[in-house]
Amino acid sequence: MTFEVTILGSSSAIPTSERYPTAQAVNLLGRFFLVDCGEGTQIQLRRMKFSFARVNHIFVSHLHGDHFLGLPGLISTRNLLGIKSDLHIYAHSPLKELIQPLIDHMKGELGFSITFHPLNFRQPAVVWEDRLVEVVSFPLKHSVPCCGFLFREKPSLPNLRKDQIARYAIPVSQMQQIKEGAGFTTGEGAEIPHSELVIAPPAPRSYAFMTDTAYHEPAAEIIRGADLLYHEATFLEEMQDWAGKTLHSTARQAAQMAVHAGVGRLILGHFSTRYKNLSPFLTEARALFPETSLAADGDRFAIPTLPRRNACQN
Amino acid sequence: MTFEVTILGSSSAIPTSERYPTAQAVNLLGRFFLVDCGEGTQIQLRRMKFSFARVNHIFVSHLHGDHFLGLPGLISTRNLLGIKSDLHIYAHSPLKELIQPLIDHMKGELGFSITFHPLNFRQPAVVWEDRLVEVVSFPLKHSVPCCGFLFREKPSLPNLRKDQIARYAIPVSQMQQIKEGAGFTTGEGAEIPHSELVIAPPAPRSYAFMTDTAYHEPAAEIIRGADLLYHEATFLEEMQDWAGKTLHSTARQAAQMAVHAGVGRLILGHFSTRYKNLSPFLTEARALFPETSLAADGDRFAIPTLPRRNACQN
Repeated sequence: MTFEVTILGSSSAIPTSERYPTAQAVNLLGRFFLVDCGEGTQIQLRRMKFSFARVNHIFVSHLHGDHFLGLPGLISTRNLLGIKSDLHIYAHSPLKELIQPLIDHMKGELGFSITFHPLNFRQPAVVWEDRLVEVVSFPLKHSVPCCGFLFREKPSLPNLRKDQIARYAIPVSQMQQIKEGAGFTTGEGAEIPHSELVIAPPAPRSYAFMTDTAYHEPAAEIIRGADLLYHEATFLEEMQDWAGKTLHSTARQAAQMAVHAGVGRLILGHFSTRYKNLSPFLTEARALFPETSLAADGDRFAIPTLPRRNACQN
Repeated sequence: MTFEVTILGSSSAIPTSERYPTAQAVNLLGRFFLVDCGEGTQIQLRRMKFSFARVNHIFVSHLHGDHFLGLPGLISTRNLLGIKSDLHIYAHSPLKELIQPLIDHMKGELGFSITFHPLNFRQPAVVWEDRLVEVVSFPLKHSVPCCGFLFREKPSLPNLRKDQIARYAIPVSQMQQIKEGAGFTTGEGAEIPHSELVIAPPAPRSYAFMTDTAYHEPAAEIIRGADLLYHEATFLEEMQDWAGKTLHSTARQAAQMAVHAGVGRLILGHFSTRYKNLSPFLTEARALFPETSLAADGDRFAIPTLPRRNACQN
C-alpha cells in the first residue's frame, strides 16, 4: 500500500548544479504519476531508477518552461525504448501546439498515442480516478493559469471483524450490507449494531502539490487534512512584496497554508537561486509549522498507512 | 593561449544517469563556443562553472533532439539572468520553426536577439572567424543533414629573432616585410635570407568534432592533421551492419578516420546505451590508433601550444 513522493527537481525557474527544474514522481498504491516535467526530468527518472514504461500519466501545473521543457526529450526516449503504452498529459491546452512540432519532428514513428487533457483552471476537478484513488486538480494563483494537484485514496468501507462473524455466524450474503452500514439480527432476534461488527479502515491518505502560486486561501478547503503538502517557497518573508508581485510564496506563507489546511507535514521547494543558504527557509516556516522539511532532489517522502484518526462509530 | 574542449554530454540519443546527450564547450583563445545543446546542457554548464554570459555562439550539428533540445531552457535561463548579448545559432534552418514557439511563449521579453545562421550541408564553409581563429563546418554522413565542425587557429606570421635584429640593426620599417617573407640587405650589401631572421611560430592548432556520422572518408581531407578529433563511436565493430544502417560509426571506424586524417589524438563518444562496459571501445580503437580516449561528461581536453612540427624554412 505504498504512497510515496519522490522529488526529481526542486529548483525554481533557473536550475542549479544540484537542483533540477520542477518534477516529482508520485507512487500511489502502485499507480505512477509524474507531476511537472522540467528539463532533465528523464535523467532524474533514470538516476532514481524509475522505469520509463510506468510514465503514462503526466500532470503539468502550468506552462512556464521550467515545468514542461523536459517533455519532448522524455517522449523521444520513451519511444526509442520501444514503449507502446499510450501517454496522457494533463495540462493547459496550449501545451500541445508548443511541443507538437518537436514531437512531429522526432526520429521514427511514434509507437504510442499522446492524449492531451485540458485542465480546469476555474474550479476543482477530478482529472484521473479508478476504484481506489483519484487525482484532483484545483486552481492556484499565478501569473499564468496554474493548477495544484491532490492525490488521494478514496474512502474505503470498514473491514468486518472476524471474531464477530464467527460469534454470530453471519452469512456471506449479509456481509456487504454490514460493510455498507447495516447491523445484524441474530436467530434469537438480538440486534447487533454495525459498530460492533466492523473495524474502521485505515484513514484515506492524500498528498497535495502546490506550485507555482501566491498564498491562495481557497485551496486550503480542497487540500484540508492532507497528510503531506508540497508548497512552493520561492522567497523568504523579507521579499514578501516581490513574492506578491511575481505571484510566488514565501516560506512563511507556505507554512500558513499548512496550518490553515491542517495538513500533517509540509515540504518546501522551488527556491530562488538567489539564496545560497536555505536554512532560513526552514527556520521561517517551522516558527509557524514545525513539521516542515526542505525538498532536495532525490528525496523520497513516504506517507504511511495509519489507523483512522477518528474511529468509525455509529 | 588556451585551447580546451570540455565534454558536457557524451551519450547517444538516450541519456543515462551518468551521461547527458551531446554538448561540448570549446574555449579557443578565450573565445567560447558551444557545440550541440542536448537536454540538460544548461545544468552541465553550471556544474562545470561556465558563465552563461559567454554562451553567444552555438553550433548545432543536426536536428535530432539529443543535439538541440537543451536550447529552449538555455535561452530562457540566459534571459532570466539578464544577459543582453546577442545569441547566434548555427544550424539546419528548420531549427527556428521548431523552437520559436517555445521562445515566443517565454516569460517576459527576450532581452537579446537570436540570429539563426543556416549551415551548408554540401561543402565546407567558414561559419565564424576573427583575426586569429575560425570555425569551419563540413558535411557528415547521417540520416538527416549533419555537419561536423573544425575549430582552428589561423596560421600566424613567424616571429623576428631579436638577436638578428640587433646584429644587423634592422629598422622597424622593414620588420613587417621580413615577417611576411622578405630577407634583409645590410648596409654593406650582404643578403641575409628570411630564414635566418625569423623563428617559426607555434603550429596552428585545431580540433575536429564529428558526430553523428557513418565513416565518411571525404571529411579526412578537411580535418587533416587536427591535434584532437572527437568522433562518434555509437557501436562496436560487431554491430558494423547496424551502424551502417543507422548511419553511425563503430569504434574501429572512428580510429580509421583518426589514422586516415593523421590527427594527434582521438576521443570517442556518443555511445549506445546498450553497452554497460565501454572498455571494448577503447581496445577496439587503440588496436588501430593508440592515442584514443573515451569521453566522459566533465572531461576536459587541452591542446597545448607546441613548436611547429616542420620548422619554417625558405
